[in-house]
Amino acid sequence: MGLRATLDFLLYDWLEVQALNARPRFADHSRETFDAVLDTCERIAREKYAPFNRTVDTEEPRFDGEKVILPACTHAARLAYAESGMLGAAQDYDIGGMQLPYVLEAAANSFFAAASVSIGSNMLTSGNASALMAHGSALQKQVFALNEFNGRWAGTMCLSEPQAGSSLSDIATRATPDGAGAQDDALGPRFRLKGHKMWISSGDHELTENIVHLVLAKIPDAEGRLPPGVKGISLFIVPKHLVDTEGRLTGERNDVALAGLNHKLGWRGTTNTLLNFGEGRYPVRGAAGAIGYLVGAPGQGLQCMFHMMNEARIAIGMAATMLGLAGYYASLDYARERPQGRPTGAGGKDVTRPQVRIIDHADVRRMLLAQKSYGEGALALNLYCARLVDEQHTGQGEAADEARLLLEVLTPIAKSWPSEFCLEANSLAIQIHGGYGYTRDFQVEQYWRDNRLNMIHEGTHGIQAMDLLGRKVRMEGGRGLQLLAARIEAGIAAAAATPGLDAEAAALADALQQALGATDAAWATGEPGEALANAVPYMQALGHVVLAWMWLDVARAALRGDGAQPANAGRLAAARYFFRYELPRIGAWLKVVRERDLTCAEMDESGF
Amino acid sequence: MGLRATLDFLLYDWLEVQALNARPRFADHSRETFDAVLDTCERIAREKYAPFNRTVDTEEPRFDGEKVILPACTHAARLAYAESGMLGAAQDYDIGGMQLPYVLEAAANSFFAAASVSIGSNMLTSGNASALMAHGSALQKQVFALNEFNGRWAGTMCLSEPQAGSSLSDIATRATPDGAGAQDDALGPRFRLKGHKMWISSGDHELTENIVHLVLAKIPDAEGRLPPGVKGISLFIVPKHLVDTEGRLTGERNDVALAGLNHKLGWRGTTNTLLNFGEGRYPVRGAAGAIGYLVGAPGQGLQCMFHMMNEARIAIGMAATMLGLAGYYASLDYARERPQGRPTGAGGKDVTRPQVRIIDHADVRRMLLAQKSYGEGALALNLYCARLVDEQHTGQGEAADEARLLLEVLTPIAKSWPSEFCLEANSLAIQIHGGYGYTRDFQVEQYWRDNRLNMIHEGTHGIQAMDLLGRKVRMEGGRGLQLLAARIEAGIAAAAATPGLDAEAAALADALQQALGATDAAWATGEPGEALANAVPYMQALGHVVLAWMWLDVARAALRGDGAQPANAGRLAAARYFFRYELPRIGAWLKVVRERDLTCAEMDESGF
Repeated sequence: MGLRATLDFLLYDWLEVQALNARPRFADHSRETFDAVLDTCERIAREKYAPFNRTVDTEEPRFDGEKVILPACTHAARLAYAESGMLGAAQDYDIGGMQLPYVLEAAANSFFAAASVSIGSNMLTSGNASALMAHGSALQKQVFALNEFNGRWAGTMCLSEPQAGSSLSDIATRATPDGAGAQDDALGPRFRLKGHKMWISSGDHELTENIVHLVLAKIPDAEGRLPPGVKGISLFIVPKHLVDTEGRLTGERNDVALAGLNHKLGWRGTTNTLLNFGEGRYPVRGAAGAIGYLVGAPGQGLQCMFHMMNEARIAIGMAATMLGLAGYYASLDYARERPQGRPTGAGGKDVTRPQVRIIDHADVRRMLLAQKSYGEGALALNLYCARLVDEQHTGQGEAADEARLLLEVLTPIAKSWPSEFCLEANSLAIQIHGGYGYTRDFQVEQYWRDNRLNMIHEGTHGIQAMDLLGRKVRMEGGRGLQLLAARIEAGIAAAAATPGLDAEAAALADALQQALGATDAAWATGEPGEALANAVPYMQALGHVVLAWMWLDVARAALRGDGAQPANAGRLAAARYFFRYELPRIGAWLKVVRERDLTCAEMDESGF
Repeated sequence: MGLRATLDFLLYDWLEVQALNARPRFADHSRETFDAVLDTCERIAREKYAPFNRTVDTEEPRFDGEKVILPACTHAARLAYAESGMLGAAQDYDIGGMQLPYVLEAAANSFFAAASVSIGSNMLTSGNASALMAHGSALQKQVFALNEFNGRWAGTMCLSEPQAGSSLSDIATRATPDGAGAQDDALGPRFRLKGHKMWISSGDHELTENIVHLVLAKIPDAEGRLPPGVKGISLFIVPKHLVDTEGRLTGERNDVALAGLNHKLGWRGTTNTLLNFGEGRYPVRGAAGAIGYLVGAPGQGLQCMFHMMNEARIAIGMAATMLGLAGYYASLDYARERPQGRPTGAGGKDVTRPQVRIIDHADVRRMLLAQKSYGEGALALNLYCARLVDEQHTGQGEAADEARLLLEVLTPIAKSWPSEFCLEANSLAIQIHGGYGYTRDFQVEQYWRDNRLNMIHEGTHGIQAMDLLGRKVRMEGGRGLQLLAARIEAGIAAAAATPGLDAEAAALADALQQALGATDAAWATGEPGEALANAVPYMQALGHVVLAWMWLDVARAALRGDGAQPANAGRLAAARYFFRYELPRIGAWLKVVRERDLTCAEMDESGF
């Protein structure tokens, strides 16, 4: 099945997102308007993204000393995306938005990730602007957010620093009030920032007339000391070019300087930068430092930035998923056309017979079915989470609160699981192509390279796992995990009553109990050092349990349809594959969690 | 521990290779001569290989229309290797060889693979020449093999064709007798070859004055039909430049033309080519076709070529292993220096304390220990296999025959296991580096790219698995598998009597029984289609059992030494890691083998 058919099935037959139209916010929508958005995005991705995926890989961003040069296709792709209105898809009608449910926005954006994951960084722009809509002043929204949604300006998120990657409490960018009258600037309390920000995607380019940096920094106390920890972090708008209250460029370049481009293994379409703030490269208004406007209250910076974190992590999970599916489709096409070898068993040794297509080999089918189960399963999970975002924002009381809590638990998995297993899918796609897959004449090697980033950015695998086992499954007295278990049990009960899914239902019930038992065992001593030593294997296992639940539920939806239809038969096969080949893997992962195995943690460093 | 310390331990303390000196062939050797070879190779690798690993990645081979251009460092590295005498390391003294045991040759070559895996393809040259020593005429040895061993010429292996990658029975290169007197050529029966050969490493270059291609082709019958199957394949020497019986170039260019360079994901230091034989680009001696000399008897070509296959596959396993270890050492250095974050648990939340080095985080240790267990375990296996090669060639009666048989079973694992798990190790090395590991400023991303080839060349993972479960564990009435089991059981018995290893001994005994049971269950119906549907999971599982055996044996050797010494404590920790985190994975792999699960094999194609 192609991507569109899979999306249609998951959105309409499985999640029944058309029911969202009953809610006031989405009342003007219908399956027709949803489909129109999907059609538009599918077309733009096909015309403006897919043909240039290799171009942006080979023509890396370069700096000519003054400007960052990107290939023309990147400009064209950005323009087409901005003109589609997708930057503000979720926003209110009265500011030019579409009031689209988030699950539809996520589904529509998936076409771009599959076509060329790195050509644009539009998600950063809309995420940046959405954070301002939540936490900015009225004028900050008007001047900055709206000019991002309408595509005039682009946005970034400036968190990491060279000495503080995953450890945000250690950032050292310093923001001091910008002299007299600084508190009364209409654009917000005005500060001067000095510091270095690393890994900033789209940190510099000429795609838009301005770039709106959202920057985390610390405001020193009277003695000039930076407040320790994350509670001392504040959030600032730092535009590349200064603007007035009408959003017009004043002609003053702000002191944000490109210190270097990062040259990466993949994801090369997006400029990735080290930025210097306030180093004096572009002195502005007669004082030192880059000019920035405080967003929200001092010390609330991380909270404001994390407003977008669930969506950002789901977006990363979705990007990983789409790379996985792109490799699946490519290797499926190849396997259907490439003749090689003869079948195993009777007649297979008769070399006078013509060769068969490689899709006729069991091991190639295994590699295809693994990819399908990873990619479509991950897509189901990400859409499920996106649907929860809508529930959180537009649902009623308890349903909304449960959605919020479930999202807390599921988000680390929605981000990390596709990053790991859809990367594995890409490796299988290379393997199916044999030697050809190892050449740059085929796209699968690029998918694999591009996908390797997803286990790193927006919080590494290790960070996600600590978040999951250290915080999420324990928060609110463990209510989030209980809620997840209850949802999975409901799925098991429904499947147990469905002919043909009883064995899978029983397997999932057993797996869930293993995972819950391991959670308790991990924390039995209450020692974080013991519980979290195996946080990553825990996350892998709970991820597999969640994916099995997704597949069981998708299988049930497939059986509600015509089970003999090839697409549904394929979904049932992928579900069976997941239960037979994948779910049993949790045994090895949970064993070390349950036993609080400290082989690694306690190893003496001198022995490495 | 560094590579040299690990090699010394495995060679002398574990495998006790110094005992080989008691054999007549190696009588002139001693630990001193072995060490001298290791010293020399370590030095050349450090001086001529390592500094240029990135150079050969970025300055890919290119064709200027006449010649293939390679960077100067590649010429220098080849020269240094040739001058070291390593090309003929295993050969007799009387032809200028060193009569070095193969296990020492393999260990010495490991330095080059770790320093820059693709800068040279010397293994192909010595493999090519060794095949000629086994199957060529006296003059073919004198003219071709000796000029390869002495470094004057280079060699290739030309097997694959564009339409026949893994399926050699389908090759279509045609060899016809070269007119009158063809049978009587002093260099061997002379033929004219026409065809295309794909994936030919070092297929064209200016590193040496000549290139000796060993080419598989078919001799048509009287009606011009090519004999079907692998039994119709013959082997030919096709020099790039024709030579006389004294090994002097005659000045005639043979009709071997570069049709294209393959542009790959990694392993870019080695030219990889599509070659056209006899297409008329370089007409020679007034007739069509490239001139080639038959080696051995017609129809015996594959057998002659496969003479070198065990060694070639061990060499690939070793290359994968060394990339894995190179990544391990790089990420270990990084983890020891990079400060980031604070410890989990008590005091960890005190952000006024300085950050710790990332090696102090349990998850980083887990990723390091996984790499160590994969890399050093794979090194042990490859050296063990290399030692078996020596036993096969220089051992007595039964011992030699057992070595041969054990090698048959272990070779697919020695090739495939490091290719899969040391690739995973390289991914963990990237992960430890975080965002930096994803940039080209660090070497780990290149190791990962280079290593991806090893699951593909010299027989894909799928081909190795079919060989293992379809042929090797069943050959000679299953005697090879019984022999392997007996050796593992002997290791278990010895470990069971060793204080501190009893739990591991019991775990391996259980794992071995699971693997043996699954082998029987896979073949219970005698249907290859059922048995082989899950050949790859079988190979993964048996590979893990074999690696656990290696680690148990290495742990025993570590305990024979000073167990408190950091290096030995580290080996014991890696062994424990392997038993606790890795060995339990066989459960999921063997389940589908045992159940002869046909989910993949029987899936209808329309459902993908």
